[in-house]
This record gives sequence, C-alpha cells and structure tokens, in this order.
Amino acid sequence: MMNPGKYQRQYFMPPKGYQKWTQKEYVEKAPIWCSVDLRDGNQALVIPMSLEQKIDFFQLLVKIGFKEIEVGFPAASETEYEFLRALIEQDLIPDDVTVQVLTQAREHIIRKTFEALKGCKKAIVHVYNSTSFAQRQQVFKKSKEEIKKIAVDGAKLLKELTDETGGNYRFEYSPESFTGTEPHYALEVCNAVLDVWQPTAVQKAVINLPSTVQLSLPHVYASQIEYMSKNLKYRENVVLSLHPHNDRGSGVSDSELGILAGADRIEGTLFGNGERTGNVDIVTLAMNMYAQGVDPKLDFSDMPHICEKYESYTGMKVDERSPYSGALVFAAFSGSHQDAIAKGMHWIESEDPDHWTVPYLPIDPTDIGRNYDADVIRINSQSGKGGVGYILETRYGLNLPPKMQESMSYVAKDRSDHLHKELLPDEIFSLFKETFEHVNGSYDVNEVHFRQLPDSEIEAEVTLTAGDKETSKTARGNGRLDAVSNALKAACHLEYDLVTYQEHALTQSTSSKAIAYVGIKKPDGKLSWGAGVDPDIIRASIDALVSAINNR
Amino acid sequence: MMNPGKYQRQYFMPPKGYQKWTQKEYVEKAPIWCSVDLRDGNQALVIPMSLEQKIDFFQLLVKIGFKEIEVGFPAASETEYEFLRALIEQDLIPDDVTVQVLTQAREHIIRKTFEALKGCKKAIVHVYNSTSFAQRQQVFKKSKEEIKKIAVDGAKLLKELTDETGGNYRFEYSPESFTGTEPHYALEVCNAVLDVWQPTAVQKAVINLPSTVQLSLPHVYASQIEYMSKNLKYRENVVLSLHPHNDRGSGVSDSELGILAGADRIEGTLFGNGERTGNVDIVTLAMNMYAQGVDPKLDFSDMPHICEKYESYTGMKVDERSPYSGALVFAAFSGSHQDAIAKGMHWIESEDPDHWTVPYLPIDPTDIGRNYDADVIRINSQSGKGGVGYILETRYGLNLPPKMQESMSYVAKDRSDHLHKELLPDEIFSLFKETFEHVNGSYDVNEVHFRQLPDSEIEAEVTLTAGDKETSKTARGNGRLDAVSNALKAACHLEYDLVTYQEHALTQSTSSKAIAYVGIKKPDGKLSWGAGVDPDIIRASIDALVSAINNR
Repeated sequence: MMNPGKYQRQYFMPPKGYQKWTQKEYVEKAPIWCSVDLRDGNQALVIPMSLEQKIDFFQLLVKIGFKEIEVGFPAASETEYEFLRALIEQDLIPDDVTVQVLTQAREHIIRKTFEALKGCKKAIVHVYNSTSFAQRQQVFKKSKEEIKKIAVDGAKLLKELTDETGGNYRFEYSPESFTGTEPHYALEVCNAVLDVWQPTAVQKAVINLPSTVQLSLPHVYASQIEYMSKNLKYRENVVLSLHPHNDRGSGVSDSELGILAGADRIEGTLFGNGERTGNVDIVTLAMNMYAQGVDPKLDFSDMPHICEKYESYTGMKVDERSPYSGALVFAAFSGSHQDAIAKGMHWIESEDPDHWTVPYLPIDPTDIGRNYDADVIRINSQSGKGGVGYILETRYGLNLPPKMQESMSYVAKDRSDHLHKELLPDEIFSLFKETFEHVNGSYDVNEVHFRQLPDSEIEAEVTLTAGDKETSKTARGNGRLDAVSNALKAACHLEYDLVTYQEHALTQSTSSKAIAYVGIKKPDGKLSWGAGVDPDIIRASIDALVSAINNR
Repeated sequence: MMNPGKYQRQYFMPPKGYQKWTQKEYVEKAPIWCSVDLRDGNQALVIPMSLEQKIDFFQLLVKIGFKEIEVGFPAASETEYEFLRALIEQDLIPDDVTVQVLTQAREHIIRKTFEALKGCKKAIVHVYNSTSFAQRQQVFKKSKEEIKKIAVDGAKLLKELTDETGGNYRFEYSPESFTGTEPHYALEVCNAVLDVWQPTAVQKAVINLPSTVQLSLPHVYASQIEYMSKNLKYRENVVLSLHPHNDRGSGVSDSELGILAGADRIEGTLFGNGERTGNVDIVTLAMNMYAQGVDPKLDFSDMPHICEKYESYTGMKVDERSPYSGALVFAAFSGSHQDAIAKGMHWIESEDPDHWTVPYLPIDPTDIGRNYDADVIRINSQSGKGGVGYILETRYGLNLPPKMQESMSYVAKDRSDHLHKELLPDEIFSLFKETFEHVNGSYDVNEVHFRQLPDSEIEAEVTLTAGDKETSKTARGNGRLDAVSNALKAACHLEYDLVTYQEHALTQSTSSKAIAYVGIKKPDGKLSWGAGVDPDIIRASIDALVSAINNR
C-alpha cells in the first residue's frame, strides 16, 4: 500500500552558495573514464561472469578506449581473485591502462587485495567504507569519529603495504553512501584520508563521491560536489571522481552536472549495468558529448558489435530505448517525423552544411555502425508519405510524383493497420507493385502504331481490349501517350483528364528499364494512379495509363 | 566512423538570469499528469496497439489515477479514429477524466479531429506545429512569420469549430521541437496563440513545451522553461506543460528541474515508452516524489500487475533496471549490501522510526506489491553472510550463530561460484541441510541414558558407532551435551573444544521441532559446525554435535 507519509528526504544540503556550476552550459572536455563493468556491473548480475567472459570483456573495454578499469573485488570471491591473477600473469594489461581493485577498509581484506596484486605493474587501490548517517546508526552503530578512524586506518594500511611491496600503486578513497552523508562530515573524512596519503602531482589521489543510492535531484548532488571540490585539501593533486547510480533515473544528469561542478572523473558502466537500477551509462555520457561536438575519447563506432558482446558476457539486454544504443532509438514510424528526416537528409546532401542538423536524429546513426534503411525509416499504421517515399526512393530507386506518394502511403498505412504489423521494405515494394503495376481490369492495350503528323501532333492506331472485346481505334494527341489516351477514351467512352506523367530510368535495374507514373483525374475530382516498367519508355507509359484507368 | 567535428550544439540559450529554480530543492507537489501512452507511446511501437488493447490500456490508466489522457491522433489512422469513437459511444470516459486529442495545425486534419470528437463531453484539443530553426529551414522552408501564422491559423480554427459545435473543449498548443527553437521566438508564437484563445480562469489554455529531441543539459532546459513561464501572457490562466523525451537520458531530470522552473503539468508515459528513446517515465517521476514523502497522486501499489499489463499491450519489456519497476532494482547480491539491508530491516522492526531508512532500498518494495524474499536478498557468488543469514532466518526460521552463518555463507558463495548460477532460497536451505545436518562420517550416537548426579553433574551412558564398531562409554559433564561430548572424546580419542551451543524452536515447523547448532574448535583453532533437528531438544543437540565432529 502506498503511503507517502512513511518517507522523508534522506540527503543533506551543502552550505548555500555552491552553485557556480549553473554558469556553465555543457561538458567541454571528456572526463577520465573508469569502467566498473567488471566489478559493480558484475556483482549485480544474477549470474556473475566467468573468468573467460571477464577477460573478453576487459579486452573489449580496452578496445573502446578505457584507460582505467576496475577489475573487481579480489578478496570477495575466488573468480575475482583469479581474474586479476590471470590479467597479471598472462600480461593482458596494456601499458597505458591502469587496473583498479576495490577493497573494504578492513585489514584482512586489504592484505588479501595486495596479495592478489603481486606483480602488477601499476594499479589504483580503491578503499571504501560507508559514512552515511543511516549506516553509522543502523549497520555499524559507531560514532563519526569511529567511522573516520576506519577510513584513516585503511588509508594508512594501503600506504604501508605499498611502501613494503614497492608497488606502483595509486590510491582511491570512497566515502560510500556519500549521498546519505552530511557533506561537512564527508569532507572531514576525505581530508583525513588525504592527510595520510599526502598526494603529489606525480602520485595524485582519487577521491570518489558515489551516489550509492540516488537520494536528491541532480542539482542538489551537483552543489554537494562543488562544495567538496572547493574544500578538499591538496585539491590540485586530487582527482575528483563520481560514481553515480540511477535509483531516481538521474544517473546521467548527476554525472553531467557533477562534471560542471568540478568532477574530473566518472566511474560507470556500459549501458548502465550495475547494482539495482545500475550505474551511470557511460555510452550515453560519451555520446551526449559527441552529439555536442566534443570528443569523448571513447570509440563507439561499432555500437552493434559492442551491444552484442555486452549481451553475451552479462546475459543482460540492451534496452530497445537505451539512448544511442537501443534497437529503436533511431526509428521513426510517424509520418511527420519521417517526412522531416527525409527532407533533412536531402538538405545535408544538397547543402553540405558544416554540421549535422537532421531533425529527430541527434546523431548520424552511421557514425556508430547503424544504418538508415534498417534502423530509421520504418513503416507501420502511423507512418506517412515521407517514410514510404523515402524507402521506395532509397531502396528501390523509385521517385513517385508527390500526390502518388501520398496515395501509396495511405495504401501502406491501411495495410499495416489491418495486418496489425510493421511493413518491411520488401513488403512495401510488393505492395506498390500490386497496387499500381499491371492492374488487371476491363481495359488493356495490345498494340500501338504511331505516326508523326506534320503539325507535330501524333496519331496512334491502338488495338485494345475492353471487357472481352478486342477493337481498334485511331486518335491524335500532342504526344504519344496523349494520342493513346484519346484513342482509349473514344473507344471505351471513358471520361478523365490525364494530369500527371513522369518517368525515369530505373538505375537499380540491370536491364536498363524505365518506369513511368501516370495520374488521371476522374470527373468527381479524384485521382487514380498507375505505373509501368519496360525497356521501352513508351510501352511503360501506356502500361501506367492502363493501370491508372483500371485502378479507377 | 566517429567524428565529433561533425556536430555542434543545436539549442539556443535563454537570456541570462532565469535560474531562480536553482533555489528550490525538490518537487513539493504533484504536477498535473497527462498520459501520452496511447498516442506518443503507441506511435513508437513496431506494432501499434489494437482497438481492444487501447481500451484496456485506457482503463488501466484511469485506474492508476490519470485525469488527463491523450488518446491519439484521430485523423492519423482508422484505428485511432475508431478508438476515440469507441470511448465516446461506449461511454468509457469517467466524468473526472478528460481525453486529449492531437492534431497538426492543418485545416483538413483539424476538421477530421472535430468530427472524431462528436458527442465527447469534454476534451483537450492539442494542436501543434514545428517551430525549430532546423525544421523551418529544411522541412517547411518558411519564415518565422509564416510558421507563426500556421500556429495562429490553427488556433483560430480550433476556436471557430468549438464555437460552431458548442463542444466543451479546452485547447493546448505545442511549439513542436521547442528545444531547437530560439526561446524568444517560441515565446512569440505561444503568446500569439494565447492572444487568439484568450484563456480565462475557467477555460485555461495549456502551453506545452516539448523537448521533442533532447539537445541540452537539463539545467539549460530548466532555464528555458523559467524564461517561458515568466514571460507568457495570461500566465495565471495558462497551464504550463512539459513533454520531455529522453534522447540524452535526461527525461526525468528535465521534468523535475522543469517543474522547479515553473511547469504545472507533465506529459509522459509508463516506463518511458515513446518515440526513439521514449518519453519521460511517469512511474519514475511519481515514485521519486513518493520516496521523498510527497504524494504523487498516482497509484502504483500493484506495480507487478501494471508491468504485466503494459507488456501485454505494447509488446515492450520493462527493463530489468528501470527505476522502481524493473525486476532487479531491489535486488542485493553483494554481501555488504545484504548485511546492511538485513540490519536496516531489524532497525525498523526494533526502533519503529517515523520514516523509512533502510540502506540500499530507497523505498519499501512491499509498498508497490514487490516482496523482500523474492526481490531483495538474492544469493550469488558475490553474496555474504548477511544475505544467506537473512534468507535462512526469514524464510526458514533459522537463527544461526554468527560464526556459523559466516561459514554457511562461504559454502553458498563457493557453490554459486562453481555452479555459475544464482542460488534460490530452496537451494540455500538444501545446501544448509546437506552441509550441516546428518553429516555422515566415522561417528554416530545410537542411544543415550542420562543420570542426574547429586553435584548437579550429568552422567551419560552412550552407545555409539565409531568406524564400523559399536561401543559403549559412560562419562560426566556439567550438562547433558557436555556429558555426551566427553563420552565421545573418551571412546574415540577425539580432541576438540565444544565452543558454541545454541538452540531454538522451529516455529515454521508443524510438528514443534527444535533445532540445535553446535560449533567445535579443533586443536588447529579451526571451527567446525553441525546442526540437528528433532522434537526432543537433547536428541537435536546430540545430532548437531555428531555432525560437527563428522564435519571436521
């Protein structure tokens, strides 16, 4: 049963005045990215990854361009321990990539972590303890001083063991559940840890502020970050990192506003995998920058491949509406969207503008390995002439007259509406042919002989079928089709105006055929359409006319 | 191929100074909710809904508590037209619910829309045209004045047709692609529309500002909204509405910050269905308010049912990590999270605090029809003693001694790690029994006779099996178990200390059995555990001891 009285806000506001970030407009520079797919992402899977899957995933992350990768919590399980050992012993860590390992601030866990690191060329050792009001009260039942001491003792042990082993390690500290911690206390703990580590320009420390559970609106989180950024000691030697989760659906905004507020680094995962609602989706963050002209320093140019690999490693599914990566995110079913996209694409071709500006497509899908035909213009009962026309044009080389395109779009919509399914390009092409080409009916033209008259008129002697009866008729016109049309009208007592005639070569056909489109207007004002395809353009246009007449 | 140089920011900043919203902290009051599931949501489906599905979905939306529901674009397809007719003719619209219909600002489409509305008691007629820089330039090839005229002409026709038909209609106008429109121009167009409509306190107009395509960070959108809110004419008679999409993954933040900036109303869908990346997810928005103690005025107390219905109508899937609604969003696999949740739950029980404060659970899952057992504490190779202990306690009524719980958690982790799968509660219970109960080995106790000695000691005459051999031994102890233990030690030359003994009734058992846990410490300092279940508590404790010995 829902009862809002049961809840209250569980975060703590920073002091007033930390809103300088609101003066910034967008993310101007890629942060340091740290993938936590193999740790936070892995621990959130119903079935955690196997050693082989982890190694493959690690290599995918390297290929995408991650330079910092949290590879696990080696003290937590045998698989995690062995995974780190495999990376080290099989020499799988490139020189420009730093692995990161997570450990609680507890002595035996830290010691086991250092054991797991033996022989690692360089690493970030990431130590955490929970500092939130709720966890101090309910879980640890400890005072602020005691909780701070856990952090400081952990920090000291990291330094000691590093000095002992001579490892090339940097340190990271997270006041876990930062978003439920009083900002001044989080600051006090972080500064106490930094006092132990004494970071330098050469050996910077990472201070990581997780929204372990998202508790506030993103502008509140950003102000918390700005408060921390402005009051951390050794700030110039601190890499300020964020680790946003997504409980309130604001992981992306927490990250982006947090960067404006001073953060230098983002911990997240591909496609937002991670505990509960997941970590922030680094794909979205990076592509958001890209769509605004900023180099994200990550390579998603083969997104379908990355999606496929991710799904096979994790057993998770990339949601169909996941920004930039989902199956449907470039799809336009609605007629007006399709029309605008088709016109926008023509604009790009004809005007060659400096920047991408196609409506409804924040980025060019081909940049990330998607394609227009399969992913963008799709036809269902909501679609309009722009979409159907675009498919017939780009896939089959047909440039229908605009009014015929409209007529065709109603046919397609109607078919989709009644079949209750999407129409694929092939089905649309078939539908076009069955609707407008070789339309059987009462009339047919069997044979025509033309004669050029001196006054530039044409005379046509037409052998035709009307009903079951074959007959002949000769008539004149100001062109060949006009003459045939007049013969048909006279022989069969038909009333219509020939209002549209268009033809073009079928470039996509191997046999150099032409296609003709004919529109006739009936006495009631309604239009009727036909199309004809033939190597002989005259025959094509006569077939189109006959189909238009039969289509009445 | 990725090439950031191809892109630039496509939005327009509002004048400076529209950042009063940053002074607000959270959403204090539910906005007017308008569901666009049946329109925007429907048009984005590969297979749009059938008439029957739409009627069912409409009734679900009414039940959740939506008072404004956009039911479609009646002029766009036969199904949409018939759906509205069915709602009206079958009298399916409750008196406190207003349906909304969408129409382009084009005469024949508006006329058809009014035809579809005949007999409708009340409605919001929602007219739109695209106003963005890109669409004016590429799609319509029209000047600002011409585009404004489309909006004004549409607004006039709405007013005229309403006057003609005497319908009880309110009006809504959307400058579609608002986020790509210069704010001062969007304002100019909206104010021109409002000048036509002359809204009053009784007949308010809705001005709806869509982030048709999300182009900026959410704080920029919020400032655009504040600019509009402060400069719209007839502001007190205008309902300022937002229609956020999710291209940058910020639909939720656009909505929340937009409400702080002055918006009164949100158009969105359940679970964020809608064109491309979808519309804003109203479930998340409403539950975000709820989690902060604010009544969202929507009822999601049976979320699993709503998810199931939604999935059957749309053919879409609620993502496993979708906030509040996803299958995994309350799941805790990690040991430390499980431990904190278990302690937090105990805290709630013992302290009965005024507000919900359980770590890692932003809300009580039972509020929305989920449950702790199946959804929260789940066991895989990442899990720890808290989780395993919680399941054994809450599902099977077992209160293991803390050190035994730790031992059991290693057994479970190890099993999960090697089987490479999640362990379900039944499997954990089986694993417990096979590991600690009736452990076969070298020793067994067949029969015991006790005698109370005068000095409050107990003498036990034990018939036991050691290896293949049955033997008898009598020994004393300061309790029954101690006496049996001493007899076993003496008969079999065993060395250990009996360090833990605990027992409790099995309340979940129908036959009033008791369970006993015994821990023994071997000479090397290692602990070994056993459990026994029997109606006779003495027999249970002896079985536990024998299992602990066999378990060495």
